[in-house]
Amino acid sequence: MNVVELITRKRDGGVLSAVEIRELVEAYTTDRVPDYQMSAFLMAAMLMGMSPDESAALTEAMLRSGSVLDLTSVTGIKVDKHSTGGVGDKISLLLAPMVAAAGVPVPMISGRGLGHTGGTLDKLEAIPGFRTDLSIREYREQLADIGLVMIGQTAEIAPADRKLYALRDVTGTVEFIPYIASSIMSKKLAEGIDALVLDVKWGRGAFMRAEEDARRLAETLVGIGNRHDRPTVAWLTDMNDPLGFAIGNWPETHEAIRCLHGERVPAVSTLAEVLAGEMICLGGIAESPERGREVARETITSGAALRKFIEMVERQGGRSDVVMNPADHDGTVSAYDVVAPDSMDGTIASIDSYAVGRAAVRLGAGRETVDDEVDPMAGLELLKKSGDRVQPGERLARLYTNKSERVKEIVAAVAQAFEAGAQQKRPLLADRYADGRWSGASIPDGA
Amino acid sequence: MNVVELITRKRDGGVLSAVEIRELVEAYTTDRVPDYQMSAFLMAAMLMGMSPDESAALTEAMLRSGSVLDLTSVTGIKVDKHSTGGVGDKISLLLAPMVAAAGVPVPMISGRGLGHTGGTLDKLEAIPGFRTDLSIREYREQLADIGLVMIGQTAEIAPADRKLYALRDVTGTVEFIPYIASSIMSKKLAEGIDALVLDVKWGRGAFMRAEEDARRLAETLVGIGNRHDRPTVAWLTDMNDPLGFAIGNWPETHEAIRCLHGERVPAVSTLAEVLAGEMICLGGIAESPERGREVARETITSGAALRKFIEMVERQGGRSDVVMNPADHDGTVSAYDVVAPDSMDGTIASIDSYAVGRAAVRLGAGRETVDDEVDPMAGLELLKKSGDRVQPGERLARLYTNKSERVKEIVAAVAQAFEAGAQQKRPLLADRYADGRWSGASIPDGA
Repeated sequence: MNVVELITRKRDGGVLSAVEIRELVEAYTTDRVPDYQMSAFLMAAMLMGMSPDESAALTEAMLRSGSVLDLTSVTGIKVDKHSTGGVGDKISLLLAPMVAAAGVPVPMISGRGLGHTGGTLDKLEAIPGFRTDLSIREYREQLADIGLVMIGQTAEIAPADRKLYALRDVTGTVEFIPYIASSIMSKKLAEGIDALVLDVKWGRGAFMRAEEDARRLAETLVGIGNRHDRPTVAWLTDMNDPLGFAIGNWPETHEAIRCLHGERVPAVSTLAEVLAGEMICLGGIAESPERGREVARETITSGAALRKFIEMVERQGGRSDVVMNPADHDGTVSAYDVVAPDSMDGTIASIDSYAVGRAAVRLGAGRETVDDEVDPMAGLELLKKSGDRVQPGERLARLYTNKSERVKEIVAAVAQAFEAGAQQKRPLLADRYADGRWSGASIPDGA
Repeated sequence: MNVVELITRKRDGGVLSAVEIRELVEAYTTDRVPDYQMSAFLMAAMLMGMSPDESAALTEAMLRSGSVLDLTSVTGIKVDKHSTGGVGDKISLLLAPMVAAAGVPVPMISGRGLGHTGGTLDKLEAIPGFRTDLSIREYREQLADIGLVMIGQTAEIAPADRKLYALRDVTGTVEFIPYIASSIMSKKLAEGIDALVLDVKWGRGAFMRAEEDARRLAETLVGIGNRHDRPTVAWLTDMNDPLGFAIGNWPETHEAIRCLHGERVPAVSTLAEVLAGEMICLGGIAESPERGREVARETITSGAALRKFIEMVERQGGRSDVVMNPADHDGTVSAYDVVAPDSMDGTIASIDSYAVGRAAVRLGAGRETVDDEVDPMAGLELLKKSGDRVQPGERLARLYTNKSERVKEIVAAVAQAFEAGAQQKRPLLADRYADGRWSGASIPDGA
């Protein structure tokens, strides 16, 4: 393999074979191709484009760079969900036990938060004692025993993705669908799953700001899943406003636990039920996604989902009393009010989820760089949402933080995230992509 | 400065300010921006383009990355020549003493050969004892004393160029006019010259294969020179066939010395006289390039150019007896004949200068990588040129090498470089660019 020739060919608009892409990724992963050549290649391919065959080869190369887990010893159709990331997205914590309680094994490997978005791992670890670093053997055994396991990325899975992701982050080569899609799908396909549901978010707080870009990403992701014989369904969802009321690790975990206890939280409950319904259908327990959604709801009303969550928390070393009585776990952190300024009188049109996500990070809930520690208790709670009436002096949000020095400016930034005016009503779930087509189906919050 | 933001902006088709380009180049040169970010930027700018202002800023940034030599203490208009590189290009060795003998100070900083093209430094060092590593002080003093000095790149001059050149070489970002032009001009402008003549070559043995690309490069180079108030003239010259008969370091130096002794070598003598004439005109000694050419010729017939060359060789530690009697210095190397095969009967249409240049490198005359040692005696001599009649069994060329193991295949490769058929006559000097326009003037070999 001549790396300069591969870079030059791509730069000049040429196409690489699957073998060439595999050799390049292999050589990069094993440090035989240096970062400066890979970054030149990544930029060239981003600007000149990658064909569907090249994108598939890239995913395959990243998938094959590490272990592909074998879960065939676990009976049942294993189904996972992946979200492209948002602000206040605690859906996995709620949905995974619902689906598992319905009888579909859920092996979930999640990431940590970076930038303005949170990560499921950090939320799980807000439950004292909860271990996310199980071995592959523990992962497989727990899935076989209780049908639910939630862990972090292991070193065995897609090492090429970790290395490429870090390089893309610092070389301006992040926002390219073939890279985003291969990064997501190489990890998901390596998990040993049989089917996959995708929550592809668009809007201010999402990776994809434009709805059209999110649609293209959904199509690419589903295409890769289907090429690998994993039935895959994607929902396009709205991430302009934060999802739910809580943002931050424990605040979000607390909100998800309240849902498991039976409380209905706008947007959160609807989204969890729709996506869980898809998984229950893909898992063969319901004949349609709609019927799956009913089954999912029943796991809440029956208490089965909460029991499944507690079972997992105990098995993974977490304190189940925190799940039983989450309110007892609050309060070890300072709280600050955000109140509506005099200029704000009327209806809240929107809440900028990007600004809220950034504020949560600055409060200690997230990472500015990968080495930062997160404060599980830090974050914020929205007390008003879009469509709510507000008067000057009313409380808009409550911030939780152990970093008092930055609070004043963060309070101001959160107040600014609230925009008054006529609310633009958009469906929470905007469209569904499966079997090579968009259905045009949309589901509003609360439906 | 946020490097990722600069990369991203360029990637998205944006424009960088002169300050941003200077900060980026400065940070890269001082190791504060890593190779992998710079290579992503280089690829993005190559694919999205750079404006004339950005190209000028890049040249300026590279120029300012090191010392800019001050030769104002040396009286006279200092003029240099730069060739974009070719096969058999020994013009500098002949032209520099001609111009200096005519009274125009010539401060020349040259490079080494890399790839299939040779370098003036390696040719000078084929004269035993010749030192090319003078200090800046010695360089300035010698120029003041004898009006001629020829040295190698110093660490003080354009360090950004050395670092960027090495990176471009391994990241597929070589063939982009703003990079090529800024690399050449940053070094030339740092030399302390007042005016510059450029030999921009096109064809098989040149950096620019297509005549049109060479024209764009010439326009860019002259534009940069004029922006820096250095009157600059470019000639577009043909590099499809090797230049002259000798290729390799001593063989070429020997050919140049023979020209200084008064022998006329086709192409070599014409090209040297035309370019020297331009320099003598820019140096204020002749009122026109044509008249400068006559002055240049007279420095040969009077012996003044040869005397100037010997003066420089002695001053820089070289053996002047080798210049006086160059034939005595041949012969410490094995020679091999290349004969015309049975299929070759008729006229030689062309000799592939790229193939000949590659053969010379393999004989030991050049470098495959920057760390290779060159053999000063290695190379070859063409015994037939385009337009000559040839019969099977006649000698086409003679190879000189100390590496016997590869000779057989190199003999075959050189034979293949000769193509029989109708000769396509092209002018040696194809066009002249100055004052923002092409003159349309062309000069055939021998004119």
